[in-house]
Amino acid sequence: MVSKEKIAARFRQLQDDICQALEQADGGGIFIEDNWTRPEGGGGRSRVLEGNTIEKGGVMFSAVHGPLPEITAKAMNLAPTDFFATGVSIVLHPHSPMAPIIHMNVRYFETSGGERWWFGGGIDLTPHYVVPEDARFFHEQLKNTCDKFAPHFYPEFKKHADDYFFIRHRKETRGIGGIFYDYLDDKTGFTQEQLFDFSIAVGETFAPTYTELLQRAVARSFGEAEKRWQMLRRGRYVEFNLVWDRGTKFGLETNGRKESILMSMPPTAQWAYNHQPEPGTAEAETLGWLRKGVEWI
Amino acid sequence: MVSKEKIAARFRQLQDDICQALEQADGGGIFIEDNWTRPEGGGGRSRVLEGNTIEKGGVMFSAVHGPLPEITAKAMNLAPTDFFATGVSIVLHPHSPMAPIIHMNVRYFETSGGERWWFGGGIDLTPHYVVPEDARFFHEQLKNTCDKFAPHFYPEFKKHADDYFFIRHRKETRGIGGIFYDYLDDKTGFTQEQLFDFSIAVGETFAPTYTELLQRAVARSFGEAEKRWQMLRRGRYVEFNLVWDRGTKFGLETNGRKESILMSMPPTAQWAYNHQPEPGTAEAETLGWLRKGVEWI
Repeated sequence: MVSKEKIAARFRQLQDDICQALEQADGGGIFIEDNWTRPEGGGGRSRVLEGNTIEKGGVMFSAVHGPLPEITAKAMNLAPTDFFATGVSIVLHPHSPMAPIIHMNVRYFETSGGERWWFGGGIDLTPHYVVPEDARFFHEQLKNTCDKFAPHFYPEFKKHADDYFFIRHRKETRGIGGIFYDYLDDKTGFTQEQLFDFSIAVGETFAPTYTELLQRAVARSFGEAEKRWQMLRRGRYVEFNLVWDRGTKFGLETNGRKESILMSMPPTAQWAYNHQPEPGTAEAETLGWLRKGVEWI
Repeated sequence: MVSKEKIAARFRQLQDDICQALEQADGGGIFIEDNWTRPEGGGGRSRVLEGNTIEKGGVMFSAVHGPLPEITAKAMNLAPTDFFATGVSIVLHPHSPMAPIIHMNVRYFETSGGERWWFGGGIDLTPHYVVPEDARFFHEQLKNTCDKFAPHFYPEFKKHADDYFFIRHRKETRGIGGIFYDYLDDKTGFTQEQLFDFSIAVGETFAPTYTELLQRAVARSFGEAEKRWQMLRRGRYVEFNLVWDRGTKFGLETNGRKESILMSMPPTAQWAYNHQPEPGTAEAETLGWLRKGVEWI
């Protein structure tokens, strides 16, 4: 078994590496750090950025422990126990509507003494305008990482992302998906060390993939119409996160650290009554892509 | 018993009267009408406004019927039955941060044959900046209306509003409350006709009260700082509605008409990481008022 301290330290390093890569890509923005502790045990290191390329971004590390809240134990089908959980969570909202919103999370959970443990996480992309070659590139990067571990990882985790990042009341996906996995433990046939390596590999896929996507977006011009569409899509992002995201709901209902949970909120968002893009426009084309089961590769 | 048709017709009239009063107060904006039908029975008349004073507003009437969805029957502790429901729902977001957001709802529900019936509704106010004399005026109007029916209505329904319009994860109320009531039936000691009269009285309190508040706000100047605060407060409004409002959650989870449900969303909203107003500012003062149990009268 890899110790929980080692996993937490590696996740913390991942936060450092990603922040450094993002500052470089942003071209001017600097992360501001906010350290916090949790009365019941542990704490976190939040880093937030208001940059030149990234309008609002958060790269959050936490490692918390203590008695597992009763409601959580119940939801997870566990007897009363102490727990330890550590992870890195990222949401980045770029200035340009031509660049995508991205979300990443890698996390590890274990009960007292390590009787039960698992990894969860994933990366998914929410372009305001879907560019099929970018979507393909994004999914290829994820598939490459997954394929180093098992051929069934990508198709399985890609389907999970499609199913999870779905705005049910809009009948549209939040974006073009990615990968999402949870409760990866020894029942997968992999050891804890192998699944830890997989989590780190996912984490290390994040920065080069997103900075490439930002780079591609630089050349794409936009005006008021594209900004307006970005604001409406950010509204949808809010709807997904506040209405359907299990982590957000659970965190808010169980008195989690609200600033960490809500760092995913966009800097600005808009809503219009019954907005429908004109057929044949780039906006309508994007909506056409926001469905489950698109095979980008 | 007042027939459900008569109640629906009166609510429809209320929508007309309120829209007319709001157009006059807005000074230029005209409501756009959107009629819709529900496959299972009934429909609605949605009216939305993008005006000079009101940036985004909706005044929605609906009268729907059909088999009561199983999940609803269960939640309401009813055997399978047909139902009829009619109501008027309003949310108005003004341009000026010095004017308040307002919400009103009056509704009537009955099961097939009228075996069970009840009224629900209320009016509550969400100022971006709390002005105590406006808050007092607002609560006085509501109390006057309540007092015509029973002395315990105002204190009881005021407390319900405080408890209901509470953003639990922020530990702050959505605004300065108002009145909120639900399941008013003959167990209250009042007849269906009397409670219908009360609902209409609440509905008729809306327009004169809100137009007076708009009028008072005209003279108050504001700049970028106040607009910024308004955007952040609108973000809180979104958080309440999407995370905590039972009607919104229920509607979205049961495939209700999403455009009617989400008409309450502000035209624009903003989020900032861990935003805290400076002590002693008007913004900090407003936050100080956003708690339960303030006696405005």
